[in-house]
Amino acid sequence: MNDVLKQIKNRKSMRMFENKPITDELKKEILNAAFEAPTAGCMMLYTILDITDEILKEKLAVTCDNQPFIAKAPLVLIFLADYQRWYDAFSFEDCNPREPGEGDALLACADAIIAAQNTVVAAESFGIGSCYIGDIIENCETVRALLELPDYVLPAAMVVYGYPVEAQKNRKKPARFEKEYVVLENKYHRVTKDEHLAMHHTRNEKMGLANKDINADIKAFCKRKYMSDFALEMNRSASEYLKKFRSE
Amino acid sequence: MNDVLKQIKNRKSMRMFENKPITDELKKEILNAAFEAPTAGCMMLYTILDITDEILKEKLAVTCDNQPFIAKAPLVLIFLADYQRWYDAFSFEDCNPREPGEGDALLACADAIIAAQNTVVAAESFGIGSCYIGDIIENCETVRALLELPDYVLPAAMVVYGYPVEAQKNRKKPARFEKEYVVLENKYHRVTKDEHLAMHHTRNEKMGLANKDINADIKAFCKRKYMSDFALEMNRSASEYLKKFRSE
Repeated sequence: MNDVLKQIKNRKSMRMFENKPITDELKKEILNAAFEAPTAGCMMLYTILDITDEILKEKLAVTCDNQPFIAKAPLVLIFLADYQRWYDAFSFEDCNPREPGEGDALLACADAIIAAQNTVVAAESFGIGSCYIGDIIENCETVRALLELPDYVLPAAMVVYGYPVEAQKNRKKPARFEKEYVVLENKYHRVTKDEHLAMHHTRNEKMGLANKDINADIKAFCKRKYMSDFALEMNRSASEYLKKFRSE
Repeated sequence: MNDVLKQIKNRKSMRMFENKPITDELKKEILNAAFEAPTAGCMMLYTILDITDEILKEKLAVTCDNQPFIAKAPLVLIFLADYQRWYDAFSFEDCNPREPGEGDALLACADAIIAAQNTVVAAESFGIGSCYIGDIIENCETVRALLELPDYVLPAAMVVYGYPVEAQKNRKKPARFEKEYVVLENKYHRVTKDEHLAMHHTRNEKMGLANKDINADIKAFCKRKYMSDFALEMNRSASEYLKKFRSE
């Protein structure tokens, strides 16, 4: 296994950081990794917001489901899916462009996330940990106002970076589902109830929790995550952002 | 600059591959890199389709805006944003789940793309080139039928992989826009016409094309890409996929 793979294998999300800044030099390298990422038609359909204002960080820690660790991260980047820049370019050059659609939005989200993941890999190569914050999609109106987002821009992800504290480094990486359930050949297959149970049981085993009650566990997870207020809010906000990309 | 950064910097999209298979061992490592990627709540909100059927590859090369090189790639993976698996899990366990919403769709797309980008990085570490095919979002009805996709699954991206032919390796990597236009501090700023012109001029300069006519260039690009039939089709199909995630 080469060093790149080793790094990918060992990487896990880090939420608690040492009180140690990331130097401008390293920040520059992390951002460069974003620019060098693949991008649809070389359009760079994203804008990266570098959140340096501490008061703004505090506000975002609140809008992102009240997670105070966000405000304590030395580097906070928001990856915006951005079709505004190109729409404006087409307008400036009298191309008489149509309004961006939902496919454009998905393509821009992909561009933004590809760039984000390159920064995560680059940061890791410097021993800098990171954590994705999907909650940036919540509270559309507040976030739009705080970040002054125009119509054809939506947050695809936020990532926080920092030097992880020792306790975080020693945390066990959560086990993944087995390949057989996640990689399928040529066509999709919906898991049966038996496969579903086997899938969860095997993952629990890998975590040393073979006797975990799958029903109780999934019920609690569903309630805490999927049926939570923040999940409903994320769906509402996502819908608001995407509405701008719908001409109907 | 460390090896990880060097690799990220040098990586460019490859579309023409040698007639040389990717071994099972390397394919396994590439897929493992996907599983090790960060994933929202450790849910792995994606399914990877490994397209091994040559006839299916040919069909996808057609549905993806007629790009024959797709069918010639030794490895073709489709990264599906997948909320079906968890929706089914919640149903099996009597959680009485709500229907997935657009926020769930965006989160699953992010998960799928993060995993995809890890495979791109892993492949590159073996000298295996890759190219994202956003066109997999097109022709929703045909693709759904070919891949047997249920309601809460949509293609986030396709990636093709292979050993690049010499001519591809020597191709110049397209220049990116300057950092000042892509990274903003704390809030969004819409580019003015002057900034827009400077942004394109600088990129053209970096490509050794300082005298390029920006207006003619962007007009042609807009017509060929943004106003093209395939872009309209992508928007139509994206809308169809996302409709399933809208309860209204």
